[in-house]
Amino acid sequence: MRRAAALAGSGAAVGLSAGLARDVQAQMAASSPPDVPPWSKRLGAPILQHPYGMPSPYEKSALRRESPGLTRTAYSSVSFTPLQDLFGTITPSGLHFERHHAGVPDIPPDDHRLLVHGLVDNARVFSMDDILRLPSVSRVHFIECGANTGMEWGNVAVPTVQYTHGMLGCSEWTGVPLALLLDECGYDKRRGRYVLAEGADGAALTRTIAMSMALDDALVVYGQNGEMLRPEQGYPLRLLVPGVQGVSSVKWLRRLKVGDMPWNTREESLHYVDLMPDGIHRQFTWIQEAKSVITSPSGGQMLRQRGYHAITGLAWSGRGRVRKVDVSVDGGRNWRPARIQPPVLTKALTRFSCDWQWDGGTALLQSRVTDETGFVQPLMRQLRAVRGTRSIYHNNAIQTWRVDPSGSVSNVQVG
Amino acid sequence: MRRAAALAGSGAAVGLSAGLARDVQAQMAASSPPDVPPWSKRLGAPILQHPYGMPSPYEKSALRRESPGLTRTAYSSVSFTPLQDLFGTITPSGLHFERHHAGVPDIPPDDHRLLVHGLVDNARVFSMDDILRLPSVSRVHFIECGANTGMEWGNVAVPTVQYTHGMLGCSEWTGVPLALLLDECGYDKRRGRYVLAEGADGAALTRTIAMSMALDDALVVYGQNGEMLRPEQGYPLRLLVPGVQGVSSVKWLRRLKVGDMPWNTREESLHYVDLMPDGIHRQFTWIQEAKSVITSPSGGQMLRQRGYHAITGLAWSGRGRVRKVDVSVDGGRNWRPARIQPPVLTKALTRFSCDWQWDGGTALLQSRVTDETGFVQPLMRQLRAVRGTRSIYHNNAIQTWRVDPSGSVSNVQVG
Repeated sequence: MRRAAALAGSGAAVGLSAGLARDVQAQMAASSPPDVPPWSKRLGAPILQHPYGMPSPYEKSALRRESPGLTRTAYSSVSFTPLQDLFGTITPSGLHFERHHAGVPDIPPDDHRLLVHGLVDNARVFSMDDILRLPSVSRVHFIECGANTGMEWGNVAVPTVQYTHGMLGCSEWTGVPLALLLDECGYDKRRGRYVLAEGADGAALTRTIAMSMALDDALVVYGQNGEMLRPEQGYPLRLLVPGVQGVSSVKWLRRLKVGDMPWNTREESLHYVDLMPDGIHRQFTWIQEAKSVITSPSGGQMLRQRGYHAITGLAWSGRGRVRKVDVSVDGGRNWRPARIQPPVLTKALTRFSCDWQWDGGTALLQSRVTDETGFVQPLMRQLRAVRGTRSIYHNNAIQTWRVDPSGSVSNVQVG
Repeated sequence: MRRAAALAGSGAAVGLSAGLARDVQAQMAASSPPDVPPWSKRLGAPILQHPYGMPSPYEKSALRRESPGLTRTAYSSVSFTPLQDLFGTITPSGLHFERHHAGVPDIPPDDHRLLVHGLVDNARVFSMDDILRLPSVSRVHFIECGANTGMEWGNVAVPTVQYTHGMLGCSEWTGVPLALLLDECGYDKRRGRYVLAEGADGAALTRTIAMSMALDDALVVYGQNGEMLRPEQGYPLRLLVPGVQGVSSVKWLRRLKVGDMPWNTREESLHYVDLMPDGIHRQFTWIQEAKSVITSPSGGQMLRQRGYHAITGLAWSGRGRVRKVDVSVDGGRNWRPARIQPPVLTKALTRFSCDWQWDGGTALLQSRVTDETGFVQPLMRQLRAVRGTRSIYHNNAIQTWRVDPSGSVSNVQVG
């Protein structure tokens, strides 16, 4: 059931304050209850038809999708999470966005090893058995690619929230605190200021993280949403650096090296840097600042009737918890507070919602998050004033969806 | 990667207090880093190989399973969640246990209707479009079948935690508060004391719930772990009555009727009743009382070495939050507090863990939860003293796993 289909309803004046005015007698004649539908008169499918279950065949449109032409090869590409089809805050593992630099390696877990070396007293090699025996923690965190919403920098308004914000997911991750592994290896507490993480994929994707992040809340992760990591999420082992751009959460993790300076690898000098208006590249801009987006109604959907609609979306911050979300339906002239769905967890997606009576006119829907540090999500023009339009990364501007009198919803840039 | 395989490790003295004594030089010669493994030298699979992703082919043993001979037909049967393979608290939707009474119906969502009638001012029929447009909430709750752990009543010690406790799952559910639907229909606040819920499956499974539960936290649910319900979980619509035995969370929900007395349907008079020692059936024993179980080490697993092991498991209560979990390794003579993984949510699975040094002798592993009402999980003999051994339902006794000197773990009844 697509949220878009739901909005494109039957035309009846259904709603809260409008009352549910559907003609019950007509409905009862036309639809199932109290008539007994055919599927109530026969046996269904037997148990364990799918020992590992799958979504309903009626939900085939809820899929990860590639943005045509965005990358030159399917081995270094992106697939986007269908945020418009999702509820709550947990991203189904099968729909979590992908970003690979040399495809998804096939790694037998028994053959996988993690080396911890560099400025440590005792370099160590961990097998997956070793890792799985250590004390673990489980925490819910988002992962957002630093390039998420990148196409919006240049006024390239892509059509749907899947493409504007879909390099985003949130899962319950399980693994070993990175601090525990570093302690076990006796890292150099005086000189050890950085940690290099290397992936076992063909790209050997390699990133530096600060020791402060490593010791704070970084995890070496093997579990996602209750089960082992999916292959495209780094099976059998990945790094997770909460609140930091996704590329730092190195997948297929095979090596951690403690050092005293950043390594300035290809993926932190040539790529994943912010090109400023004066031509300078800002490097190591790690944190994903506070951001929010309305997922319904959103671009590509259609409102078929006036009256009540539930506006809903997601908010998050790489610096901690969401404090509040405000919603505007007039392009930012007036704001009102949205409802926040508890529990509000640190560095995790937070679902917000807001009631709205659509009067049938043009509307400009926006959301604006404030996080627990007091950071307020900026307008696009505020971001551009500082960073220009030549960047790809770290666009956390307020997103606008325009509702036309026809009911169609599209992506526009306002403010 | 099965947790059992992890416990059956390589024989090296890996652990926390024992230190990680593996010979790094030998390891480096024998395994991947710093040698470059073959999957680092080639391209992996391209993006979107699976637009809807699946687990790694190396994880084929993490499956729902049927208990042979437990039921007479695959159309009225049970499949069990592989708790021994899972991490954290979210149950992957594809591994969530199933219980059907006439198989899984195939219901086109556009043709599904929910009738609300009985002691209401305005009977209504809701389409899925109607339901999806209403304000929704998302909450994490467990569902446990009332018959979970039922085989243990009669000293039939089944081998693994999948079969002892696997009629259990926990998901982030999204839907409309039942109270909102009842309010919309103007339920009779004086006489309306019960609600009947009927499923659209071939069994027309029908259960009574108390109005107090309906108004408290019951939901009419269409979302599970971020996406639409799976077919075997009631697609496109189910009831969710948090804390109450699973049968009350009627799947494929098609009818809600407000009344002034319980209906005493087949599934609440002939089945799902507790047969007491004096031959009386206790009816409407709804609540799933506080319960816990160690999922690793657990029956069927093997410990291959002495020293450090992380004990981990799940605790929950149908009456609210888990307050604490104690763990014993000597069959209940001595107890110590386990670590509780936050966030601790009401009527949701809670993960606990505990460090353990196995000395190589016989050990009897137990966990005991106390919930926020002060209820303490009982011993088996305490339960039997009240309820005898003729019941099937509501066995929340402390579970014991015996570790033999050989390292093998089995299900025994102690206390």
